[in-house]
Amino acid sequence: MKALVIAAGEGKRFRAGGFKGPKPLYPLLGLSLIERTIFGLREAGVDEIVLVLGYQQDEIRQYLEERGDLGVKIQVVVHPGWSAGNGTSVLAAQQFLREEPSFLLTMADHIVSQDVFKQLTANLPGPGEVLVGADFNLACRPDLREATKITVADNNRVVDIGKEIKEFSAVDCGVFHATPALFAALAEAQARGRYTLSDGIRVLAGRGRAFACSIGDAWWIDVDQPEDAKRARKLLLGQLPSPRDGLVARYLNRKLSVPLTGRLAQTGCTPNHVSLFTAFLCALSAVSFVFGSFLWGGLLAQIASILDGVDGELARLKYLRSHFGELFDSILDRYSDGVVLIGMAVGTYLQNSSPWVLVLGAAALLGAPMSMLMKEKFRSATGRTYLPAEEGPWVNLLLGNRDGRLFVVMLSGVLHVPLVGLTILALTSHLLVLVRFNLMRRQM
Amino acid sequence: MKALVIAAGEGKRFRAGGFKGPKPLYPLLGLSLIERTIFGLREAGVDEIVLVLGYQQDEIRQYLEERGDLGVKIQVVVHPGWSAGNGTSVLAAQQFLREEPSFLLTMADHIVSQDVFKQLTANLPGPGEVLVGADFNLACRPDLREATKITVADNNRVVDIGKEIKEFSAVDCGVFHATPALFAALAEAQARGRYTLSDGIRVLAGRGRAFACSIGDAWWIDVDQPEDAKRARKLLLGQLPSPRDGLVARYLNRKLSVPLTGRLAQTGCTPNHVSLFTAFLCALSAVSFVFGSFLWGGLLAQIASILDGVDGELARLKYLRSHFGELFDSILDRYSDGVVLIGMAVGTYLQNSSPWVLVLGAAALLGAPMSMLMKEKFRSATGRTYLPAEEGPWVNLLLGNRDGRLFVVMLSGVLHVPLVGLTILALTSHLLVLVRFNLMRRQM
Repeated sequence: MKALVIAAGEGKRFRAGGFKGPKPLYPLLGLSLIERTIFGLREAGVDEIVLVLGYQQDEIRQYLEERGDLGVKIQVVVHPGWSAGNGTSVLAAQQFLREEPSFLLTMADHIVSQDVFKQLTANLPGPGEVLVGADFNLACRPDLREATKITVADNNRVVDIGKEIKEFSAVDCGVFHATPALFAALAEAQARGRYTLSDGIRVLAGRGRAFACSIGDAWWIDVDQPEDAKRARKLLLGQLPSPRDGLVARYLNRKLSVPLTGRLAQTGCTPNHVSLFTAFLCALSAVSFVFGSFLWGGLLAQIASILDGVDGELARLKYLRSHFGELFDSILDRYSDGVVLIGMAVGTYLQNSSPWVLVLGAAALLGAPMSMLMKEKFRSATGRTYLPAEEGPWVNLLLGNRDGRLFVVMLSGVLHVPLVGLTILALTSHLLVLVRFNLMRRQM
Repeated sequence: MKALVIAAGEGKRFRAGGFKGPKPLYPLLGLSLIERTIFGLREAGVDEIVLVLGYQQDEIRQYLEERGDLGVKIQVVVHPGWSAGNGTSVLAAQQFLREEPSFLLTMADHIVSQDVFKQLTANLPGPGEVLVGADFNLACRPDLREATKITVADNNRVVDIGKEIKEFSAVDCGVFHATPALFAALAEAQARGRYTLSDGIRVLAGRGRAFACSIGDAWWIDVDQPEDAKRARKLLLGQLPSPRDGLVARYLNRKLSVPLTGRLAQTGCTPNHVSLFTAFLCALSAVSFVFGSFLWGGLLAQIASILDGVDGELARLKYLRSHFGELFDSILDRYSDGVVLIGMAVGTYLQNSSPWVLVLGAAALLGAPMSMLMKEKFRSATGRTYLPAEEGPWVNLLLGNRDGRLFVVMLSGVLHVPLVGLTILALTSHLLVLVRFNLMRRQM
């Protein structure tokens, strides 16, 4: 699927905020606004982007050239007449899109949740129609005065669109699923001296050819001023926690890992770097246990557990996810778990040479990978993701996921009761297998 | 998708073989011929079967009623005039299929490889057409005299069909993808006094509406005589080995497990029974190691390794596969592996109390689940099955899969060198992780 991205405007108010370059290059959590738009579209299944540039087009072109391959074909259209109105910028891309059955249309300075793209790609405009991404949650919009409003009839038909209309039920989120009919509509509007994209949509609305496509609760931000970028930053970070999180991850680790990810995103640090460093901390934790420093063993394990979220967060935040990265991280995690448990068992055995320590250590080591094994097997067998959070509070309290296991390691290290920790780890990991067998059976 | 199954004929020659009941009830590896046809169609995506009965229809109905829910809706049509010809039996089902765009058609006494159904469902007949499953491997057919031959033109069009034609390029394998036009063609043939299914197909062929759909190298058998059932048995068992097998499984275990599965198929033994018994043997192996009987420890592990194939074979052979069975088996296997390794380490430590034994045991225990973990993660990330057999002979020689690991356990037990065994298991499992990281990276 193709997409049209408009990055031609000047963004006057934004410059007033102190940033020198063109607004699409404004950095937000390690990626420029335009990169976020490009990567978001790529993730939504777009394989070719027509990019219309105008104001400071040289800087943007040079920047994108330096970034190299962004995983999607980019066709640049330079539009010297951009200042007349954003409708003229859309029209400038006509020759590259007039053969498409439909295409996405968005603005480089709009940061949107991936769900917005999902909604708009899931719905197809009919021939000659355009779908307008519509946000009906008006109460949540802080910038209603600046927003482009839309009046929507019962059958989702757009009746009117514009910044100044009085009666409206939604606002336009800046993402559209359009057909080439939009170009003819824009040309018609321009012939009457009206040059914005809304003017073109209004022409189609007048013929009953513009429809609202609700984006539900998905968020979006038109980055007009530096404060908007701050809000976008907060929203981007806020969506990092995973629905697969266990209790400790949800209520403790994520509170620390997400802000850390926000900082690391602005550096060149990659998810694989973080995975490796996390594994190194686990090895250090094991060594501490072996040398009898249970406090450090426990603390390092908990720090590793917090960092364990960061690689995935960084990958999602900067669109760096890869199958190999996922495999690398999960195998490294299993090794790290094993090494920490072996360290705990050896350290405990050196202080208390009961053979029971070895039995407990072996049982804990045997149980540690089972949680992940069952989840992966469930996913590969059914094609669905198994969500531990849905196992209910009692199962969650078993702390059988990785966050829980490392939390038990931390507590038993800090409280200097490693034998208790090993016992809990050995028992709960196998108990979780039994419980999960039952829960999974019902879902299979 | 619907299917029409003809189970109306008498099967005279078959009765001469000594079997008393109606031929569709003849048992083949634990399932009657008709059940194999029903389950094969179900696996091919059929959700409703129209079943035409004639000769000894009471026995067949009663049998099917006793079997309960077969996982697919079955509509029985009793056709008292079955003896006139199999075309009349097909026509008897007309009222249940005339609204379908297309449907599969086959005979209850034809045992076919699942690939035959795959080929015929993958190709759709055009309106008014019929696709005839065609076997072009004439050299491999032992029963060419009895077969229904077809003459096929260059564009796959069927020119003629019948038992007696002289010039032919393929034989009809007894599976068709038909449209309701077949009913009109049969009625037309019957009006001219011709009552077989081939007569109906010939009417369509005369109008250029019958096409051959090659079944490639897939096998099929028309079970006319008891010898045919023997051949079917051999072919069904021959397809049980999995492409995911490691070296030891391929060249040793399957040679023993497949005949065993052939015997167990005729009992009430389920795949989960076998999985549990296999795990029990592994526990016995571990106990033997702990008590110093390394020979028995090794032998029991190898027997478990052979049985490890049987549960899957039985499930495939009797259409008993389930997501839960897969999960149950794979988690039980991981426990079994762990228990055997712990048993080996403890037994060795009791004879030679070097701390290195414990280190090697822990390393082997840590490495054991990695092979499966990587394969599952690969499958869930990419949607493709990772095939260890394609890793090349050198990687296969690492014996890093379960069959290989248990073979090493067997050898080191029988040769009474458990420390060597533990060392090999510890080293190769981690070496395999490194090698596989590289191989998987290229495929992701």
